[in-house]
Amino acid sequence: MKRGLFITFEGGEGGGKSTQLPIAAEYLRQQGIAVIMTREPGGTVVGESIRAVLLNPELPAMHPDTELLLMFAARNEHIQRTILPALNQGQWVLCDRFTDATYAYQGFGRGLNQDRIAKLETWVQGVLRPDHTLLFDLAVDIGMGRAKKRGAADRFEQEHLAFFERIRAGYLARAQQYPQQYRIVQAEHSLEQVTAQMLHYLDEFMAEVGR
Amino acid sequence: MKRGLFITFEGGEGGGKSTQLPIAAEYLRQQGIAVIMTREPGGTVVGESIRAVLLNPELPAMHPDTELLLMFAARNEHIQRTILPALNQGQWVLCDRFTDATYAYQGFGRGLNQDRIAKLETWVQGVLRPDHTLLFDLAVDIGMGRAKKRGAADRFEQEHLAFFERIRAGYLARAQQYPQQYRIVQAEHSLEQVTAQMLHYLDEFMAEVGR
Repeated sequence: MKRGLFITFEGGEGGGKSTQLPIAAEYLRQQGIAVIMTREPGGTVVGESIRAVLLNPELPAMHPDTELLLMFAARNEHIQRTILPALNQGQWVLCDRFTDATYAYQGFGRGLNQDRIAKLETWVQGVLRPDHTLLFDLAVDIGMGRAKKRGAADRFEQEHLAFFERIRAGYLARAQQYPQQYRIVQAEHSLEQVTAQMLHYLDEFMAEVGR
Repeated sequence: MKRGLFITFEGGEGGGKSTQLPIAAEYLRQQGIAVIMTREPGGTVVGESIRAVLLNPELPAMHPDTELLLMFAARNEHIQRTILPALNQGQWVLCDRFTDATYAYQGFGRGLNQDRIAKLETWVQGVLRPDHTLLFDLAVDIGMGRAKKRGAADRFEQEHLAFFERIRAGYLARAQQYPQQYRIVQAEHSLEQVTAQMLHYLDEFMAEVGR
């Protein structure tokens, strides 16, 4: 059985990646490809318990390294229980954010050491990396405007603008560093144009593996 | 302010380390040394939440790497919130089990890769290692007999004998590998004899730092 492709959907808020992901899944299924859609912590019971610790507002602020270890603990469970079994059965895995988001948010956004993130990544994932990453990129102010319209305003106060600019720049830096992995979707365009560009990339991925 | 010493108490069941630890603390305090006693997860709120995930009997079996990441997440919080602040204030820290127990139980006992444990250890601890480890060593069958007497029989069924033998051998292997760190307490002896040997080692540690 030929191993499936592991495709991650990345980007800041308002880029539409979570809207586009099920469209991508439906398109691939129409080509006869078995697809699963997932996102961290991937619906694993253990992962959800870890996520509850990470998100518990009653806990005192945890040390950044503790948070990183917990994120990778949940990720490991997601990989072992959901992602690898699906890939090994020949299914394609479409995942809404993965380790590239850790680099963008914790690394570039909050200034955690990239080499330390890389060490944990290798410890947990071995050689597993996304075969492809679709980066839904758009100007931060446009993304913020879209997110506000859907009622997510609280998280986008002016003071955080620089934080989201760092995240965007971080994603773009990684796209430049890993051109084989990354494809940039111009997410400022209309929903239809964004979908069209994404499907173009999916055609390319299918061609690469002879589908 | 001179940094305190970090002393860990290790060994299998029935060796008396948890009984001896407060005796050691009292002895050191009588010499005018400020001492804290701790054990993982060290009473941190975050650590206790992580421990609750690790011990939750309703969760499905977690992947061994997930367990290791959670253990080190709780350990990091313990180090950052409890151990390092105390050492930096000049207090001596007496800790009932630490990373050597991970090597003994998860590494030697359950067969997890020692190099992988070492990588996480370095990621979390940097250069922090116990200054000294008191290993309370005794024959497994004697330790089991003592533990049974205090009502901990369930964990010591015959089928686990080989497991506890591997743990003992693992601790002894580490003691041989790190002779500067380890001191072996002959824990088969009487309570008084064990205390006397432990206090002898404490005298030695105090002499080393001019106390």
